[in-house]
Amino acid sequence: MPELRKNVLTDEWVIIATERAKRPEDFQKKAAKTTLAEQERVDSCPFCVGNEAMTPPETFAFRKEGTSADKPGWRVRVVPNKFPAQEIHEVIIETPSHQKSIATLSPQEVEEVILTYQQRYLSAERNEKIKQITIFRNHGQTTGASKLHPHTQLIATPVFSQKFRNQEKIALNYWQKEKKCLYCVLLKEELEKKERIISETENFVVFAPYASQSPFEVWIFPKSHQSSFGSISEEEIKDLTEILPKILFKFYSELDNPDYNYIIHTYLSNTADKEAKHWFLQILPRLTPIGGYELGSGIFINIVRPEAAAKFLNDATI
Amino acid sequence: MPELRKNVLTDEWVIIATERAKRPEDFQKKAAKTTLAEQERVDSCPFCVGNEAMTPPETFAFRKEGTSADKPGWRVRVVPNKFPAQEIHEVIIETPSHQKSIATLSPQEVEEVILTYQQRYLSAERNEKIKQITIFRNHGQTTGASKLHPHTQLIATPVFSQKFRNQEKIALNYWQKEKKCLYCVLLKEELEKKERIISETENFVVFAPYASQSPFEVWIFPKSHQSSFGSISEEEIKDLTEILPKILFKFYSELDNPDYNYIIHTYLSNTADKEAKHWFLQILPRLTPIGGYELGSGIFINIVRPEAAAKFLNDATI
Repeated sequence: MPELRKNVLTDEWVIIATERAKRPEDFQKKAAKTTLAEQERVDSCPFCVGNEAMTPPETFAFRKEGTSADKPGWRVRVVPNKFPAQEIHEVIIETPSHQKSIATLSPQEVEEVILTYQQRYLSAERNEKIKQITIFRNHGQTTGASKLHPHTQLIATPVFSQKFRNQEKIALNYWQKEKKCLYCVLLKEELEKKERIISETENFVVFAPYASQSPFEVWIFPKSHQSSFGSISEEEIKDLTEILPKILFKFYSELDNPDYNYIIHTYLSNTADKEAKHWFLQILPRLTPIGGYELGSGIFINIVRPEAAAKFLNDATI
Repeated sequence: MPELRKNVLTDEWVIIATERAKRPEDFQKKAAKTTLAEQERVDSCPFCVGNEAMTPPETFAFRKEGTSADKPGWRVRVVPNKFPAQEIHEVIIETPSHQKSIATLSPQEVEEVILTYQQRYLSAERNEKIKQITIFRNHGQTTGASKLHPHTQLIATPVFSQKFRNQEKIALNYWQKEKKCLYCVLLKEELEKKERIISETENFVVFAPYASQSPFEVWIFPKSHQSSFGSISEEEIKDLTEILPKILFKFYSELDNPDYNYIIHTYLSNTADKEAKHWFLQILPRLTPIGGYELGSGIFINIVRPEAAAKFLNDATI
């Protein structure tokens, strides 16, 4: 019979119902897949090099010395979203190449992407009206990506969502009772149990959460206690530069480039009660659809045991 | 600039960002669509008449007098889900016909479907371990439907979800302050404003909620205050039998049979504080994907103003 598991960070339940699934390997042939583009450059793509005039003017870029804004020569380029969902809504174009993916970029390229995340995050925070900043990546059409060209988005809102308010309350309650960060405790337990760990570096742990809401969900937790992504150190960026593309490349090669989202869950740098809060990165492969039960009840049904998902990803020797 | 709206029932924000959309009419040609089957009966479909042996034994049916369980002669048939997500997980097969949809069934047929919902709901409630019951319909593959044959599902859990706990708390807080049901107040306001009403009968109001989380979201509210779907009256069932297929047929004809979910949001019959709680039916067309921003932040981006959605559905004269 399926198992009910509780996500201690959100108090939300998930149902692990493996009777519905085949083996993890069967996902290689199932569900939505993204096919990488054949061309390095597409004339009609506003994110491709040479098409800089098709976007609003850039707000930031890593570019070759001596090249001008909104002209070729960039390696990472940030522009306001043409159809902004909020006043601050930026597109971080990760590479000039139309056919790459963050899973296949070089470490140097990924490092500049992460540095850009931090730079834009800190820039958005400077606006005093902002209460919540979300950095997220939609990979594949079923996940909300309207453009194939590799990009990440940042949306900042003057409101704090109910979802975050709930998580914040749970973290604060735990702190008041235990005088410990709930996230640090959870990480310690995962490292002791070992059964859901995918990889570990000096600064990060990559693991399949106990109450994964979807098959192959992965969390990347910084080991040092910090409430905001804004305060990520240079050394941590170097580390993240290694492990993020590594796990995404495992998805790419072992699960046949599945659609996925990743999201940086973070509090603002000036948040109160920093001792109780901890940022992390969540990767959500979209191998099964989100149905009426999930949307209606708030309970997700996951057909792959997180322990099996971790083992499958660990066995992938790439 | 996009507008932030708050759903007062959940305290969750949505972003209404119409700059991203074309006109409502443009949805007719966009996004995931379900094509109705060409055949009335499919040999390999376990929900088709004649294939009763392909499912677990039925737990309930409306059938022709004199016919036996698990044989042809049924009009609505209920079976346990072959791959249950929980101990109580039933499939309500709405019609023997493979090619119909609840939007195209006759009033008599729909009435028996709703009667079945109530009968199975009350049956599930009898199990004392159960804390939450969700009746939901997935229409189309992108919404989680693994079978095309028209069916609804019921899942009962021994846990109460965080999502519901949050809604319950908000309703109770409102009651304590105002001595009024928040849902009844919201309904009264909608009826006074009129700008989001789609239809009204003696017992129900169909409207586009102010903070719709997705394009063309529709709520069907019972006018009389009742906390549980289990206590729906015969007269109300007759009314719902009229309006539910009517609004679904509008989607079918005006939006080209879009994928959608509907969910009955309800408390158990024996819930405490009944005066503060109100059941309703939520219809969520799935015309735009759920992306990383929605999953990460809990804030949905909706590209159609609910007022425009209501007008569009009202102008549809069918």
